[in-house]
Amino acid sequence: MSTLSVQSVFQRHREPVYQALRSAIDAIETQASTAHSELQAFYGQMKYHLGWVDEHFHPAIANTGKYLRPTLLLLASEAVGAGENDDALLRRALPVAAAIELTHSFTLIHDDIEDGDEERRHRPTLWKLWGVPQAVNTGDGLFSLARLTLWKALDEGVSSSVVARLGMLYDRTCLAITEGQHLDLSFEEHLDIPTQTYLQVIERKTAALISCSAEMGAILATTDQESIQSLSQFGRALGLAFQVRDDMLGVWATEEELGKTPAGDIYRRKKSLPIIHALAHANFADQHRLYEIYRQKAELTNEQVEQVLAILDATGTKEFCNSFLTQQCNAALDALANIATKDRPHSQRALADLTLLVRFVNQA
Amino acid sequence: MSTLSVQSVFQRHREPVYQALRSAIDAIETQASTAHSELQAFYGQMKYHLGWVDEHFHPAIANTGKYLRPTLLLLASEAVGAGENDDALLRRALPVAAAIELTHSFTLIHDDIEDGDEERRHRPTLWKLWGVPQAVNTGDGLFSLARLTLWKALDEGVSSSVVARLGMLYDRTCLAITEGQHLDLSFEEHLDIPTQTYLQVIERKTAALISCSAEMGAILATTDQESIQSLSQFGRALGLAFQVRDDMLGVWATEEELGKTPAGDIYRRKKSLPIIHALAHANFADQHRLYEIYRQKAELTNEQVEQVLAILDATGTKEFCNSFLTQQCNAALDALANIATKDRPHSQRALADLTLLVRFVNQA
Repeated sequence: MSTLSVQSVFQRHREPVYQALRSAIDAIETQASTAHSELQAFYGQMKYHLGWVDEHFHPAIANTGKYLRPTLLLLASEAVGAGENDDALLRRALPVAAAIELTHSFTLIHDDIEDGDEERRHRPTLWKLWGVPQAVNTGDGLFSLARLTLWKALDEGVSSSVVARLGMLYDRTCLAITEGQHLDLSFEEHLDIPTQTYLQVIERKTAALISCSAEMGAILATTDQESIQSLSQFGRALGLAFQVRDDMLGVWATEEELGKTPAGDIYRRKKSLPIIHALAHANFADQHRLYEIYRQKAELTNEQVEQVLAILDATGTKEFCNSFLTQQCNAALDALANIATKDRPHSQRALADLTLLVRFVNQA
Repeated sequence: MSTLSVQSVFQRHREPVYQALRSAIDAIETQASTAHSELQAFYGQMKYHLGWVDEHFHPAIANTGKYLRPTLLLLASEAVGAGENDDALLRRALPVAAAIELTHSFTLIHDDIEDGDEERRHRPTLWKLWGVPQAVNTGDGLFSLARLTLWKALDEGVSSSVVARLGMLYDRTCLAITEGQHLDLSFEEHLDIPTQTYLQVIERKTAALISCSAEMGAILATTDQESIQSLSQFGRALGLAFQVRDDMLGVWATEEELGKTPAGDIYRRKKSLPIIHALAHANFADQHRLYEIYRQKAELTNEQVEQVLAILDATGTKEFCNSFLTQQCNAALDALANIATKDRPHSQRALADLTLLVRFVNQA
């Protein structure tokens, strides 16, 4: 499995997703800034966060992310889409895909405030540039705009009962994300949380929106409830795997794989699955050592990072994470096997792409 | 017009609105805290903000506000509701009314953060008690919950196309509120903004949600587009009047009327319509004096407050505000006159109540 073939999966949907995002913001921005020029800065902040403009609101090319969630939504839609015209299928799904990406973006604006992160994708975060009050509010605006974008599906011929179903799923998902963030913030001062609790957090914070994306794609393209349910389960498992893979890379990826210092999450003292598992399974002396290291105010020395890595070794944490990852990837593949895909080239390709994504995530 | 008769208008809808709010939160809270007990604190923060519990999440009786927006929504619905059963009409409108009140509540959580306000209704604000990160997130959660509540209208037999129309209006309104807040925050450091710009701010920040409430009530009860449009205009005018009345009370209300120190908004250096109007119309020396007073770091002396009040007198600011208020109240009454109300006792009473609200606001 090459990284290249996964990149081509993302590449294929990149341009339509980008155009859908642009059109979601551009029309509203033009209208608003005609009413009041100062509102250009409001939508400008959103576009900065999305990686389209610099801090002076001049066009820029920054890292926009790979559009994982909208891509999944479109692939799910293609996988179960019936014999109808593929362009029509895409047009119906694109506003919803854009809504999901805008929602993900909104959560990052508020996460950066809540976590005090000063940089995202190598640029200053919104609150760092424009202050917390504006950033909280611009996040709320992007959240509202995301939902407004969902309704565009009506213009593409999606029935209002289907849009209502999407909207309800969407709102339940947003509530779950905030529940996850509440738990995460509540546990900030604690390291001794059960592994199960950590999984409850990432299920809400990360997996919920990925599951929602796949389920929405399915709802847009089929009425087969079993396929819809399977794609929801697929998304949940993939989302959990995705987060745990990220946690593992933050600890064990090599410098070549990352393009940056390895063990970065240990240097940053990030409370990810490896540390939580190690703490729960280390012997008394190692537990004590981990607490000491994670509670000190000073930066971690290289030697301390080596000590942490040694404790992770002693607790079999990498094996645990790998096994959890494989378990979720298998669950995702099982869910895919339950989907009633159509015998169309597009459906078959989408199914192959979804499978490819799972296998890629399982490579940590 | 007595305050008492206005209170009875609010009183009549108070209990059903409160019950709708409770049921919106209680079911979801029970489900969530069964999954994870720590989530009790998440919903507990929302209930604290709504005035139902104290900071230890024990039942409490605090000031919950008068439920202006949901009451307007229900009155608008009653005013144009056709011959159907009145209980059915109320049941259909209540989830939507609750969604609107929860949305208003959410905006207050984030406003308090953005404005750095430490107290609301004589209790510490959410961020003051639980920190900015949790308060930002609990606000997001309440926003999501508000929208989730909207969908309950489907269970009461509202069609999905009507709910879609409500949802779209709702999302446009939320975006407008954040636009207004962006403008307000942008002008924080400036006093010399045109009166027209101030009105653009309060149109979005305050009038938009009040207009949305009245329009939603109408959409739920009639298909007569002119009545729907008229109730939207009614809400907009009432919302503008409502805010300007508040601005006037903050400057000119007597101690008996307020139950607190008069001219409080001047002591707090609040940038409300009176100050903005006075600055735009004062002579050079008075302008200079106002700038000096509003820019000093120290608390205002009683003498300085007297000076400000004298400048407001000299610029005819109270007359301007009064005339603006009356103009909006007349526009609200004109809009009411265009509504096709039904010849039912409930409709007639609702229309009388809406008229009463306008006359009450016009009394500043």
